[in-house]
Amino acid sequence: MNSGTRNLLLLSSSRLHGHGFLEHARAQLEDLFQAKNVKTVLFVPYAQRDHDKYTATVRDALQPWGYAVEGLHTKTDLGRALREAQAIFVGGGNTFVLLKQLYDLQLVELIRELVLQQGLTYVGSSAGTNVATRSIHTTNDMPVLQPPSFEALALVPFNINPHYLETEANSQHKGETRDERISEFISYHERPVLGLREGTSVRVQGDQATLLGERNAKLFKPDGSAVEYAPQSDLSFLLQP
Amino acid sequence: MNSGTRNLLLLSSSRLHGHGFLEHARAQLEDLFQAKNVKTVLFVPYAQRDHDKYTATVRDALQPWGYAVEGLHTKTDLGRALREAQAIFVGGGNTFVLLKQLYDLQLVELIRELVLQQGLTYVGSSAGTNVATRSIHTTNDMPVLQPPSFEALALVPFNINPHYLETEANSQHKGETRDERISEFISYHERPVLGLREGTSVRVQGDQATLLGERNAKLFKPDGSAVEYAPQSDLSFLLQP
Repeated sequence: MNSGTRNLLLLSSSRLHGHGFLEHARAQLEDLFQAKNVKTVLFVPYAQRDHDKYTATVRDALQPWGYAVEGLHTKTDLGRALREAQAIFVGGGNTFVLLKQLYDLQLVELIRELVLQQGLTYVGSSAGTNVATRSIHTTNDMPVLQPPSFEALALVPFNINPHYLETEANSQHKGETRDERISEFISYHERPVLGLREGTSVRVQGDQATLLGERNAKLFKPDGSAVEYAPQSDLSFLLQP
Repeated sequence: MNSGTRNLLLLSSSRLHGHGFLEHARAQLEDLFQAKNVKTVLFVPYAQRDHDKYTATVRDALQPWGYAVEGLHTKTDLGRALREAQAIFVGGGNTFVLLKQLYDLQLVELIRELVLQQGLTYVGSSAGTNVATRSIHTTNDMPVLQPPSFEALALVPFNINPHYLETEANSQHKGETRDERISEFISYHERPVLGLREGTSVRVQGDQATLLGERNAKLFKPDGSAVEYAPQSDLSFLLQP
């Protein structure tokens, strides 16, 4: 893997309490796009059902900041559109729906190659962040469709749990907490999971990874322990294979 | 399908706030077991990691009520143990882990045949209820392992969402609500989903289905609407193929 060209921004969510759609991530996006002189973003809307509407939502957010937005679903030659793109943005919704569509359209290998070998700029949010990681085993979504595999784009070799929060093991409800679910994953796979709280993201530049945003991230380690990282922490160690 | 012999109890959960393990379901279990003169229950512990410990938990609950409990995982000939069983209890935990194990051990077809053709009494709880339905698409669990299929035992032809509750679309968190997730499933499959609140269950006797417990169940219909059913409601219409 020639990962020296990686230029990724993996957002926990597109929405943050008290902010407009993507508003909390504006400076992060501008920094990312500036690094590669990106003016037009190719949006991948497959995690939601209404592709036109979803693309319009993203356009309404990015256009006022000076970026044109096109929907991948409007292109007749998807491969060519991806190869010619300056940057892709894979939006959130349902992770299973998204990954199934990427496999059905045979885009998994192509996107991986373009991002890791050609330096195509990649923005993911929520489900779009899940599919950017090694696998979708740590999504919060309901498995409403079945993809052929849970293995994903593997643009980074670890797993992320987006929208991470400490759910209360409260006195009423008996469902598992978020931490219990992540610990269950680790008990079977012994791989790290980064719990990304809403409003935070991981910026990857080549072999450097940094936590962005104004809140901590919680790293669940393969040995079952967990540790908090503050904003601006260097997370490059997670990129080691 | 000769479903005239079905004898099922599908619990939302084994634990209910303010009650001991399975305590809220004692009368339901006794009624179910009495109908077939069940004295020994074969427990299927695969949804959790520690099979011995989980079986002991169930034994500690059922033994004082006069039932012997054996763990399927302790048997050398699983097929024979199932064929000779008076009743099976499939416990909760992780739905993906459970269904993968049932497929890996090639038990899916056998259990389906024994329950639907031979009248083997089946108790499911949480994940054990998910796998009893048509598919596991409406589980709440994290997909920590990948089963070969989301299609399940199909002892009933509809889907259930166990531990159902109206999660708040509160002003802080931006993850999807439970209702949004179930609606998403329906938008792709156009099949009914029964939201079973903790403390409630579905009793199936042949072609009759009844809601048990002290709370309503919420049925999400294929047309996108939802309707509440009171305890003791006749849900037999859900058994129509």
